[in-house]
Amino acid sequence: MIDVKTKATNLVWHKAQVTRTQRETLLHQRGGTIWLTGLPSSGKSTTAYALEAELFRKGFAAYVLDGDNVRHGLNKDLGFSAAERAENIRRVAETAKLFADAGLIVVTSFISPYRGERDFARRIHLDSGLGFAEIFIDTPLEICEERDPKGFYARARSGRLKGFTGIDDPYEPPLSPELVCRTAEFSPRQIVSAIIEFMAEEGFFLDRPRNAALR
Amino acid sequence: MIDVKTKATNLVWHKAQVTRTQRETLLHQRGGTIWLTGLPSSGKSTTAYALEAELFRKGFAAYVLDGDNVRHGLNKDLGFSAAERAENIRRVAETAKLFADAGLIVVTSFISPYRGERDFARRIHLDSGLGFAEIFIDTPLEICEERDPKGFYARARSGRLKGFTGIDDPYEPPLSPELVCRTAEFSPRQIVSAIIEFMAEEGFFLDRPRNAALR
Repeated sequence: MIDVKTKATNLVWHKAQVTRTQRETLLHQRGGTIWLTGLPSSGKSTTAYALEAELFRKGFAAYVLDGDNVRHGLNKDLGFSAAERAENIRRVAETAKLFADAGLIVVTSFISPYRGERDFARRIHLDSGLGFAEIFIDTPLEICEERDPKGFYARARSGRLKGFTGIDDPYEPPLSPELVCRTAEFSPRQIVSAIIEFMAEEGFFLDRPRNAALR
Repeated sequence: MIDVKTKATNLVWHKAQVTRTQRETLLHQRGGTIWLTGLPSSGKSTTAYALEAELFRKGFAAYVLDGDNVRHGLNKDLGFSAAERAENIRRVAETAKLFADAGLIVVTSFISPYRGERDFARRIHLDSGLGFAEIFIDTPLEICEERDPKGFYARARSGRLKGFTGIDDPYEPPLSPELVCRTAEFSPRQIVSAIIEFMAEEGFFLDRPRNAALR
């Protein structure tokens, strides 16, 4: 500690809140959330991580929130009942909003099957003036089921896994998503390009970042 | 969507995880958490916002997590029972860890009266190789009580407010904090300087940022 004695003990120092403009200027981007939604095995995670990597390559600060980093920490206390799944998504939406408020671009990768919960995520972002885009990873059920990398569809079909979205639990497709990505027709690279193009049009990127050569 | 039809439907594209080094290079800082702890009205919030502002002035990306942005959103469902206060701090610790993992410098401003919960926050950061520093905002109870900007101490003393830290609920001072800040002896500006100096020594700042003139 500095060796100086001073000052009133009851100082009131106004909260020196950093403004949104300061955050945007520092990071050369607008904070906001890219909310991916889709069936299990539809390609959300692949899209999210590819998008994050491409954003970094272009010099933008992004972060993926997904089951891996959320269910093992923040939402460790939550199981898979309807109420717990709702609380899982509520917390993800609130956490994404905090990240967006901090100036980051968040990419969320959760099935988030219900319109109500996605609308909640949208509302809390827009109410705070933060960017938000709902992106539908629109892969036909048959194809998701064919991919089935973890064997969940097989287990759900045989009845060993209950309440699996797409089989015995509903998935409510977005009614007016900002973007629809058909992974059966386009490559991950094409999809990422389309999302980046959309983000550029939406004003997420403030100017040419100086670290564009990063890889 | 791009007007090209292509590609396999069952593409496996490895998660293109952005590395910690990429995040550090982009942001010119190491992600980590500055965990402030202290009695109610000890000066945590003043310190947190002043530190955040100074970090931005120097070109670093920081974010304050405090009761205002956490209790009104992410932790809206939590009251003030012992279990809920513990869950509040658990979620703050996990959220701070996510921010740190994203490359940001987080400043948390919570009483966080128990050693166990602060140790938990430290452990989950260190286990992931993220920076963590516990900073004790060490203001004598008499001075906190004299400040009492919201009248909480008065209400606790008169028995109208139960379970108030410092009055009828314990505060466990840190045993080996990285830094002790005595707000009764030093001005906020001096305290922020001391914290920044500590952070520089700890390697939070990777090189001279290019936006040092930002205000």
